[in-house]
Amino acid sequence: MPNTNEFKKLAKDLVSKMTIFERMEQLKYESPAIERLGVPAYNWWNECLHGVGRAGAATVFPQAIGMAASFNPQLMKRVATAISDEARAKYNQFRKFGSTEIYQGLTYWSPNINIFRDPRWGRGHETYGEDPYLTGRIGAAFIAGLQEGDDPKYRKLDATVKHYAVHSGPESIRHGFNVEPDKRDLWETYLSAFAYCIENVDPSAVMGAYNAIDGEPCCASPTMIGEVLRGKLNFKGYFVSDCGAVADIDKHHKKTENRAESAALALNSGCDLNCGSAYAALKAAYEEGLVSDEVITTACERLFEARFRLGMFDEECVYNKIPYSVVECKEHTDLNREMARESIVLCKNDGILPLKKSGKIAVIGPNADSLRALLGNYSGRPTKYTTPLRGIIDGCGNAEVMYSPGCHLYKLEPQVWDDLVLEKEAIVSAKEADVVIMVMGLTAELEGEQGDAYNSDYSGDRPDLDVLECQNKLFNTIAELGKPMIYVNVSGSAVNLCRQNEICNAVIQCFYPGAEGGNALADILFGEVSPSGRLPVTFYRSAEDLPAFDNYSMVGRTYKYFTGKPLYPFAYGLSYTTFDYTNASATRNGDGIDVTCTVSNTGDMRSDLVIPIFAKPVDRADGDPIVKLVNVNRITLDVGSKLTCTFGITADDMALYDENGDKCVRRGAYKILIGACSEEEACAVCDVELK
Amino acid sequence: MPNTNEFKKLAKDLVSKMTIFERMEQLKYESPAIERLGVPAYNWWNECLHGVGRAGAATVFPQAIGMAASFNPQLMKRVATAISDEARAKYNQFRKFGSTEIYQGLTYWSPNINIFRDPRWGRGHETYGEDPYLTGRIGAAFIAGLQEGDDPKYRKLDATVKHYAVHSGPESIRHGFNVEPDKRDLWETYLSAFAYCIENVDPSAVMGAYNAIDGEPCCASPTMIGEVLRGKLNFKGYFVSDCGAVADIDKHHKKTENRAESAALALNSGCDLNCGSAYAALKAAYEEGLVSDEVITTACERLFEARFRLGMFDEECVYNKIPYSVVECKEHTDLNREMARESIVLCKNDGILPLKKSGKIAVIGPNADSLRALLGNYSGRPTKYTTPLRGIIDGCGNAEVMYSPGCHLYKLEPQVWDDLVLEKEAIVSAKEADVVIMVMGLTAELEGEQGDAYNSDYSGDRPDLDVLECQNKLFNTIAELGKPMIYVNVSGSAVNLCRQNEICNAVIQCFYPGAEGGNALADILFGEVSPSGRLPVTFYRSAEDLPAFDNYSMVGRTYKYFTGKPLYPFAYGLSYTTFDYTNASATRNGDGIDVTCTVSNTGDMRSDLVIPIFAKPVDRADGDPIVKLVNVNRITLDVGSKLTCTFGITADDMALYDENGDKCVRRGAYKILIGACSEEEACAVCDVELK
Repeated sequence: MPNTNEFKKLAKDLVSKMTIFERMEQLKYESPAIERLGVPAYNWWNECLHGVGRAGAATVFPQAIGMAASFNPQLMKRVATAISDEARAKYNQFRKFGSTEIYQGLTYWSPNINIFRDPRWGRGHETYGEDPYLTGRIGAAFIAGLQEGDDPKYRKLDATVKHYAVHSGPESIRHGFNVEPDKRDLWETYLSAFAYCIENVDPSAVMGAYNAIDGEPCCASPTMIGEVLRGKLNFKGYFVSDCGAVADIDKHHKKTENRAESAALALNSGCDLNCGSAYAALKAAYEEGLVSDEVITTACERLFEARFRLGMFDEECVYNKIPYSVVECKEHTDLNREMARESIVLCKNDGILPLKKSGKIAVIGPNADSLRALLGNYSGRPTKYTTPLRGIIDGCGNAEVMYSPGCHLYKLEPQVWDDLVLEKEAIVSAKEADVVIMVMGLTAELEGEQGDAYNSDYSGDRPDLDVLECQNKLFNTIAELGKPMIYVNVSGSAVNLCRQNEICNAVIQCFYPGAEGGNALADILFGEVSPSGRLPVTFYRSAEDLPAFDNYSMVGRTYKYFTGKPLYPFAYGLSYTTFDYTNASATRNGDGIDVTCTVSNTGDMRSDLVIPIFAKPVDRADGDPIVKLVNVNRITLDVGSKLTCTFGITADDMALYDENGDKCVRRGAYKILIGACSEEEACAVCDVELK
Repeated sequence: MPNTNEFKKLAKDLVSKMTIFERMEQLKYESPAIERLGVPAYNWWNECLHGVGRAGAATVFPQAIGMAASFNPQLMKRVATAISDEARAKYNQFRKFGSTEIYQGLTYWSPNINIFRDPRWGRGHETYGEDPYLTGRIGAAFIAGLQEGDDPKYRKLDATVKHYAVHSGPESIRHGFNVEPDKRDLWETYLSAFAYCIENVDPSAVMGAYNAIDGEPCCASPTMIGEVLRGKLNFKGYFVSDCGAVADIDKHHKKTENRAESAALALNSGCDLNCGSAYAALKAAYEEGLVSDEVITTACERLFEARFRLGMFDEECVYNKIPYSVVECKEHTDLNREMARESIVLCKNDGILPLKKSGKIAVIGPNADSLRALLGNYSGRPTKYTTPLRGIIDGCGNAEVMYSPGCHLYKLEPQVWDDLVLEKEAIVSAKEADVVIMVMGLTAELEGEQGDAYNSDYSGDRPDLDVLECQNKLFNTIAELGKPMIYVNVSGSAVNLCRQNEICNAVIQCFYPGAEGGNALADILFGEVSPSGRLPVTFYRSAEDLPAFDNYSMVGRTYKYFTGKPLYPFAYGLSYTTFDYTNASATRNGDGIDVTCTVSNTGDMRSDLVIPIFAKPVDRADGDPIVKLVNVNRITLDVGSKLTCTFGITADDMALYDENGDKCVRRGAYKILIGACSEEEACAVCDVELK
């Protein structure tokens, strides 16, 4: 591990040589050079949500939500290591230009560990889903893979956890929204993954959210930054504002009179680095006496500690030797396909899958040959990519493939000449085919960030969970033909697939699956591998089953608090083989629980299996979760083989937060649910009591 | 051949049962059903410029200009046969819906046999280039492949030659432009291919142009339709207006007072079928006595003769059995690759090509991974396609490929986040590489039809021939690195490639090469085949070397009349092997000439060779062409083998048109140029005299 003190000292020494005005300048994300001190210019902004993003060629892994569906932190860490290799390789090339401009540095503003509180949130696909436990584990693996490498001294990259905190839409009001979460929700849901990551993997940075909490804008909150983050959570890194968030303090939150006051309030609250232009006003703030030398110096030292720790001022750092050829190398492509396979969730299968590699297949739908549907947002550019259509063509053996997009992604009216025959062509293809694969859904055009997403009516959010009208029309038209149908929903969020589930022979949820997405999908469709992904979010039947989007109470949200009947529950996902669970037992171990069970592959195909463990209190205290993920494992079982699995559930895993936000383990009887989050669906259920 | 009289009689009988108002209705391209007579609705509009267009999945062959670059009418006919198979297969499916809507019928408004008079014309890539001889031969082969099939009775499709006549921009004024060509240009250049096709392959239809000639709008010209087309050229088919062209008569040409007069003038002039809505006014025109029963009936009979001849009212037509599976079948894909290979022109090679399949290759440029750059305009949708990048990746063996678009296709300013590092990424890739392949140029966004092309500043035309500013900037940046460079220009028209020719080790002209374009390009780059395409247009050094774009005189245009020094002349194109021409001789044969020469492959690679033969009068009569293509052949030669070729040049091939538009063969001494259009560049030159 890097020697923190050394970097601290180097930073202190260097900063001590700067004037106070130079120090202020260094708190801008576009930090200028200080030539007399040998400090080069540096742009702090970089992105790697699921691969190095916005910097050209990169291995584009499945979108974050898809990687969460693997329920596989070990694989996530390998992916993040590949990402950090590519990031370093790019940095090594870019720094030859003598500067690091935007998207060229080593400080990455990933991952997004917000909780996917409501499926309508446009940015939900950037997250690891609705569960704090899973988000913490996947997030920590990602951060570790980015930050930790082979160099004994230097940090490989800086990871930045965001958006601190309680940030999850609506996008349309993100710049001025105030949230007043109760203490229980704050700690149980919104801070849990931040706490876990900070405690376990030491992310270099935290990014503050646009919104306010209890009236304090997150980038200028003495409570959230000072008391909670640096206090209770013991965060030692630097804090960066979301882009423009400091200006929002006066502009949208109306908490200050002018930009200088906003800059001062943010910096005094602990926001070390500003993305945006607000810290240009620090000079005025300083001259008005709104910020002290000490506060400026501390922030500047934190930032230079980070830069020293990344080896930016040294040549002997081993990461400087990572060659450009690692970018999209074969190992990374193979790893990408592995992750993409594990990210795909089989939601229904009446036996039609896996498909035979013969006959006639009609591939229909606007996402079938869409690059955008592979990428999600914050992505890099794949040099070679495989759409679902191309994957099916390449993987279908002797089958004959016909294709028609069938409709526009989201517009009902014809847009180009070719649209005039789209629907008829789809009907022709379906009629000719032995089986129809519909590849439908969303893209980052339709769900995303305010300003980026094209569905500007909702600023990137969705008004409901329904299949878009034009796609629904196409679906109904094709469904009427009565052909065997497989429905592949490509989206980053839950969609109401009730009718698809009712009508189609198989339903597959494919999150934006990355450059290898089409290959991975074909691997699943044609049985090269058995599906093993699990849903990291609940698939509700309708947005009407949910509280209002802007209601931040967790009551009635996510599998932990939802009392209705979802279409597909959290952690749901089918396999091509069958598993038998025997000898399940749960025994108390202090404030934790040891769970054991033997799992056999009783079907006819080798398969991975995700085994989530849920704890469900028999007598739930008011306000507590109904049920809660407390452990997860992924195993591989050959046909006929069995494995006895043990799950060591710690007191921390079992812990809840009470109405004061205090951590506690509830005493009493629990049902331990193995494999699913409800007793009815669980593969095995054990009783245990925490006394 | 179909029995014309039978279809004429059937048409006469059927039309005789219609009221005069029903007959009028049938002259609209959206012809309504007449249920009591069993006549279904029919939409006459369909497109197949280089594959079935705008009707979904289809084998997308290289754009027309690229197919012309093959100089291979035989291959063109095979391509057109594949297209007509796919067209019939689609028709067979679509007609099951009980109607033929737009892009579902059998009457195709292809090919475009206008002369590519000026490289600035946006629609030039729809044509077969600047030479009337080549256009006639390639056009006739295309028409024959569309119309002629295995059925002894029925026509396979209707081909429509367009746009009659003298139509070649500017697009911005196309709806109201009047051209006054001199008689020599009219016949030697503008009508030559129409005359050749009508005489030799009987196209079912002719489409009238938007513009006027000598004051008569082309769709309402007694001179051009009556005297010339049905008179001198003996055209027996039906005449259709370009879309909206009849309305243009009052709206833009101001030749009539209202729509009824326009409709009457068009119909009375011989325009049988109206694309647009102007013939809705025929009823008023009839009631005003502006059109007679006879004129309406004649037009209607011509149209029904065509429909009967296509077998639309019969079930036993063999084409009804063509299955949907022919669409994009393997045979067509293979044929497409063959055509794409022959369409690519090697313009410079210092020996760098063919490339070895090893080392590091940087592929740079906005057209490298662009689907649009494969397609041109009026295209179908390929189910599987290969961009230049993908083709290079798939075809490069052990080489390592890096890719960066490097810049936007045409915008200087960054458009998306990723654009911020585009140029630097390209530099990084180039620096890392052993060789750089730049894939630059245009797409149908930048050159095309008024209304369709995005470069709306020029209505689809280009203001000059220069490489776009953003691409030029990128080129200069990369060129400065001093790496070996191959420049691939993807465009449908001539671009000023002087600097590329000077700086790069190799220059390739790749017209929009279709779905197999990337594979074909890789076949050339890595030496799977030797390049054999020839330029069907002159590559000038600058638009300043040309007369004004709206000047329709041929003086100073095309290789036949251009007296300057082009960068790459018409019919230019290199090979990977070397050829030796011996024993060349030319002897008079009546008013024709027999040319013989022996060609040997003296290099180290099997190769196709296009051998164009040009006749150049030693003493040119004023106004005559300087030189003229009179024959062309394509041969294949193994290494070390030789072939004695004979070219029978007929009096018709040698004929010119004089200042009165009369055909004549000029007596006197000729130079026969073998292989190139200038004496300096010719592979062999013979003397002959026509006495």
